[in-house]
Order: sequence, then C-alpha cells, then structure tokens
Amino acid sequence: MKKVAVLLSGCGVFDGTEIHEAVLTLLAITQAGATYQCFAPDITQMHVVNHLTGEVNNDESRNVLVESARIARGEVLNANALEVSQFDALVIPGGFGAAKNLSNFATTGSHCHIQPIVENFIREFALAHKPVGFVCVSPVMIPNIYGKGAVGTIGTDSDTAHAFNEMGGKHKDAQVEDIVVDEANKIVSTPAYMLATSILEAHIGIEKLVTKVLEMA
Amino acid sequence: MKKVAVLLSGCGVFDGTEIHEAVLTLLAITQAGATYQCFAPDITQMHVVNHLTGEVNNDESRNVLVESARIARGEVLNANALEVSQFDALVIPGGFGAAKNLSNFATTGSHCHIQPIVENFIREFALAHKPVGFVCVSPVMIPNIYGKGAVGTIGTDSDTAHAFNEMGGKHKDAQVEDIVVDEANKIVSTPAYMLATSILEAHIGIEKLVTKVLEMA
Repeated sequence: MKKVAVLLSGCGVFDGTEIHEAVLTLLAITQAGATYQCFAPDITQMHVVNHLTGEVNNDESRNVLVESARIARGEVLNANALEVSQFDALVIPGGFGAAKNLSNFATTGSHCHIQPIVENFIREFALAHKPVGFVCVSPVMIPNIYGKGAVGTIGTDSDTAHAFNEMGGKHKDAQVEDIVVDEANKIVSTPAYMLATSILEAHIGIEKLVTKVLEMA
Repeated sequence: MKKVAVLLSGCGVFDGTEIHEAVLTLLAITQAGATYQCFAPDITQMHVVNHLTGEVNNDESRNVLVESARIARGEVLNANALEVSQFDALVIPGGFGAAKNLSNFATTGSHCHIQPIVENFIREFALAHKPVGFVCVSPVMIPNIYGKGAVGTIGTDSDTAHAFNEMGGKHKDAQVEDIVVDEANKIVSTPAYMLATSILEAHIGIEKLVTKVLEMA
C-alpha cells in the first residue's frame, strides 16, 4: 500500500492551507487505496486573517502545526520529523499558507525564499526522485527546489506565471480540471482554487493530480 | 436547482465543526447538482482546543461564525439571517461544535438545550416540513426539535443512544456507511466520525445522506 505525505500550512485559505483542497487531497489518496500522513512546520503563521471580514487580526498569533492539526484531526507530525524512506510521494495543498508560511512568495514574489524546514522537507522527496504534487499556489516553490526548466502551473494568472518563469521555472497555463506533468522531475501540478469556481472543479483537478502522483510512485 | 443550507459550528473536530464532514457535505451537494449556502451562529465558542495536544487553551477565545468562515472560504451567513423560503433542505455536519456550541449536550447530556438562535434556525426547516440531514453527533438535537418518537442515529455508542431515547427520541443503531431515515419528520442521520476509521467511510455515509435529503426536498 502506497503512503503519501501531505504537507499542510495552517487551516484556512487566507492564512493557511485551503481546507477544501486539503480534504479533497486526503479523500483522493484514500479512494485510490493509498494511505496518508499529514505534516506541518512548527512555526508561527505570518498572520491571522479573520475569514469573515478578510482583515488581518494583529492582536492574534497562531502556530502552523497546531492549526494544521484541525484539518488532520490531531494526526499531524512536525515537518522536521520526516523519514522520507517511509513515503512514496508528497502532495502540498494550496491556500495562502503556501505563499505566507511555507514560503514568503506573497510578499516577495520572484525573490521568495522557502522556509528552511519546509525546503529540506520537499527537497528530500526531490533528491529521492519521489513524485511531488503541488496544488493551487504551492507550485511557486517548484523553481527554488528543482532549478532551471522545472515545469509547473498555477493556472492562468499572468503575474504569478511571470514570477514562476523569472525564478527559472517553465510555466504552462492550465485550466482548473487539468494537471501539468514534469516527467523528468516527477512533478505534478493543478490550479484548483487559483481558478475553481466550485468545490467540484477543485475536486476533479486534485483527483487527477493524486492519480498521476501515485502512478509515478 | 435545489439549494441546501449547511449549518456550521466552528472549524475543527474538538471545538467546532468536523472539517472532513463539512467539506464532504459540500462536495456531495455540489456533485448532486445542487447548491449550498453556509450559516453559523454569531456566538463565542464554548472553548478553544489545541488540536495537536487535545488540551483546552483557557487563554484564547474564538467566535463560531468567524471560525466557520474558514471552512466556507469567507462565504458564510449569520444564522439569524435565515430566510427559510429560499432553501429546500438543511444539513448539519458533526464535530464537538454541535455538542458544545450549537447545543450543550457535551456537558449536560439528556438535559441539554439547543442554543436559541440555532433552535429557531433548525425549527424553521422542521415547521416548513423541509428535510434536514444530521451528521455524526448532531442528531442529539433531534428530540428537542421534533419531539417524541423522532427517529435518528448516532451510530452504536450506547451512552449517547440512551441519552437520545431519554430525551424522547427513538434511537436506531447504524453502521458508518448507513443512513437512518424518519420519513414522517423528513429527518436523515448518519454516524460519520462517530464510527468512521477513515475519510472514505465518512464519505460513503455522507453521500448517502445528502442523496436522500435531496430526494425528499
């Protein structure tokens, strides 16, 4: 039975992991007959966003690992405890957490850095030549990890695609129900809520991504 | 196109809505060709639980409506703004939020009361004879709303089933992939994570519940 690591970045689209994308990822993995283990870095969130108003709450601080545990029903491990030999693949759901907590893409664009623990975490899968699925905005981390010419999609947003290419990646536009595959690097990406107008659209792309990731594992 | 109200109680299994159950409910509604609108009461959570350790954090306070907005991607309405004529059905996912925020079943058992705004909310659907789906532990609210002899399931937990019957309901044991239907009252219930050992098991029961609710709508 194949085992997939799922890397979370909090709990909520505006300051953490996009919740629908995370749950749809767990569902698709389980429906394919594989199992999963959630991980998250033990770091403070960039900020806390009131998801009702969209405003940042400057008086509040939350931890990425602790909030990710909500999505994982308590079953989440610290990202620094990865033993990559125990996993066949990795999937990283989106949400602003990928661009605010896992990396600083949201504030620095093409000059972004990946959080060091997170960079090590993803790089271990890349070095072991195990497939990695990037959902929604999380593909912005691809060029940093895989270097020049690595292929991925964030959908059709021209600014984000431009930044992806500036970092050395090779962006391919894709529609919400599509996946983009870099066979050489074993990378799969899908736009999900970069484009989705319904949970059903996100579901279709994520299911395709998980199927392809498991096929390459 | 049928429109379903979904009543949330926060964001996280131990102090709010069970996240998987909520997302699987939204997915099943959309896959069935219906649409949804999320609601939650604008009240303070009973408490905040650190989902990594399971411990209550007494220094923190969170609002049910604000946290529910995380699951709804911001698109959630205050439960006191319901216009029942605009909806064909209601589904209430589980999680301890149903027993801690929507009602006080977690602390008072069979002596429980439903939070007044929530009680009005659900009762409007019952009075309009529109179907309501109760997932996981949320069926403990059935006897209070529907009165003597109303039928529902919380799975196979004998203490909770006993309390359900003490309140005047008629509990039927059910397995995780089953639904229990009270045709006269138009109530459907399913155990979900009262019994589920995987997201796939919860998915199967919730999909059946949503299908039946929409059939009765």
